[in-house]
Amino acid sequence: MIGIKSIASYVPVEGVDNYAQGAKFGKDQEFIFGKIGSTFLPRKDASQETSDLCVEAAKALFAANPTFDPASIEALIVVTQNGDAEGLPHTAAIVQQKLGLPTHIAAFDISLGCSGYVYGIYALKGFMETAGFKNGLLITADPYSKIVDPEDRNTTMLFGDAATATWMGEGATWQLGKSLFGSDGAGAEHLRTTDGKFFMNGRQVYNFALVKVPAHLQQLLEASGLQADDIDLYCLHQGSAAIVDAVSQRFNEGKQREKFVKDMAETGNTVSSSIPLLLEKYVLDSHCKRVALSGFGVGLSWGSAILERTD
Amino acid sequence: MIGIKSIASYVPVEGVDNYAQGAKFGKDQEFIFGKIGSTFLPRKDASQETSDLCVEAAKALFAANPTFDPASIEALIVVTQNGDAEGLPHTAAIVQQKLGLPTHIAAFDISLGCSGYVYGIYALKGFMETAGFKNGLLITADPYSKIVDPEDRNTTMLFGDAATATWMGEGATWQLGKSLFGSDGAGAEHLRTTDGKFFMNGRQVYNFALVKVPAHLQQLLEASGLQADDIDLYCLHQGSAAIVDAVSQRFNEGKQREKFVKDMAETGNTVSSSIPLLLEKYVLDSHCKRVALSGFGVGLSWGSAILERTD
Repeated sequence: MIGIKSIASYVPVEGVDNYAQGAKFGKDQEFIFGKIGSTFLPRKDASQETSDLCVEAAKALFAANPTFDPASIEALIVVTQNGDAEGLPHTAAIVQQKLGLPTHIAAFDISLGCSGYVYGIYALKGFMETAGFKNGLLITADPYSKIVDPEDRNTTMLFGDAATATWMGEGATWQLGKSLFGSDGAGAEHLRTTDGKFFMNGRQVYNFALVKVPAHLQQLLEASGLQADDIDLYCLHQGSAAIVDAVSQRFNEGKQREKFVKDMAETGNTVSSSIPLLLEKYVLDSHCKRVALSGFGVGLSWGSAILERTD
Repeated sequence: MIGIKSIASYVPVEGVDNYAQGAKFGKDQEFIFGKIGSTFLPRKDASQETSDLCVEAAKALFAANPTFDPASIEALIVVTQNGDAEGLPHTAAIVQQKLGLPTHIAAFDISLGCSGYVYGIYALKGFMETAGFKNGLLITADPYSKIVDPEDRNTTMLFGDAATATWMGEGATWQLGKSLFGSDGAGAEHLRTTDGKFFMNGRQVYNFALVKVPAHLQQLLEASGLQADDIDLYCLHQGSAAIVDAVSQRFNEGKQREKFVKDMAETGNTVSSSIPLLLEKYVLDSHCKRVALSGFGVGLSWGSAILERTD
């Protein structure tokens, strides 16, 4: 069974002071920290391409796992909607070359936004098991600094650049449990890039998440035969402090509030990287036995899943 | 076991007379038919988006399979590198909405070019089996008319627009056998879109395919414990008549030449749709027992696989 063996990340050191940025738009510190949730938004260097962020995350993963031989990687998926090129080629091919991975590798991109990690782990696991592969790499990198207009007050205070790399393989401590997914293109217009500029209808996305995510988590628990108490941590996509707070208050009448991780102060909303950033920091080497994930955003698209420690 | 149950397609009726187009570039009919392989290149209407082509192919699939209830679809993958939007949202979400599919569906795009169908069937099968799904839809639609410059003689005579829809599910007659994949980003520059225009280094791509594909098919046979004779049909990506001819002559010393399907006269190179177009026409309802597929192109990326009839 293919599971999650290790996660590493790359978060650019440079970035934007979000208090200063908020002041520009007449927003006070309470709004920036309390509602947005991020005091600092990491930004890639202008010279860095999406594939460069992927490479940094993968190198961090290799450094943290000396026994993991990059030459053993048979599959590579990059989750992004802001790759190096316009449409083609896919970023995974470029990452294969920059990392010097073997050419007998299956490499492709998955186009998803903030729900992308939840889909990505099941897509990679499934692909690997079907193709008979033992080691795979799932990379998330969706640098919204490429598309966010610094003058757009609805988006420029929210997003941060980051990348993560997840090693999936046999003999993993963390296994994938039950998952549920959803898509509603009726809301496609709420998050969209047009003429190179990103647009978000924040109110619609907030309402969608608040209606959808608590119910979806509940459904997932029922489908898994679990109670809310059986989950040690809830790792939501870190869209904003407001949305994480609202979902945690609505789910299970707020009784599990303290189990909802909220950590975006130094990263911002990193799109498909937000959940793996939480897993890296709070879950993989923790005493947690079972965690729930839920990603939601562009599409609209959502996905929730259970991860279980098996050792 | 998830396999291929049915395939349908949509090929626009309108298009370009390739003899007339060839004449414009001083190319005679022997070149157009003998080397390029296509006398007609279908073109979508300017008002049609990529998602509209997907919808047409899916509707053809539903019409051909009255027992297939669209409401039973749990996963939808669109293979494209020229979706509706710039990066986001993904086209699969838009297709979900236009087809009126249930919102409890997992929908995402895979970014791959001419190798995309071979990856796509394994990705969808794997995802479905891992998530416990019974019915899925794999759609290919990569209308290069969106990016090909009609004045670029290296590309405008080659590509045609089309879309295909593959129903994957349980109890399928056609099952997926052994597969092999490959990626080499060192050749990423040979097929690329820049400032909205597609560029292809045809010589490099031809050489890559001629070196890589015959050897990859041979490797696949060895990995499957099969002989070249055990395969009833070889369904290559229809890049051009010249490349299909050259690969069929090089593979197994040309002894299997007559088993290589060549059919692009009325479609052109339809990118990830070329292989499913062949499967629909020559394989699914034929007397074939075992066929080999090989897709190759953008990335560079390649993938080969065996399909086997199980009834």
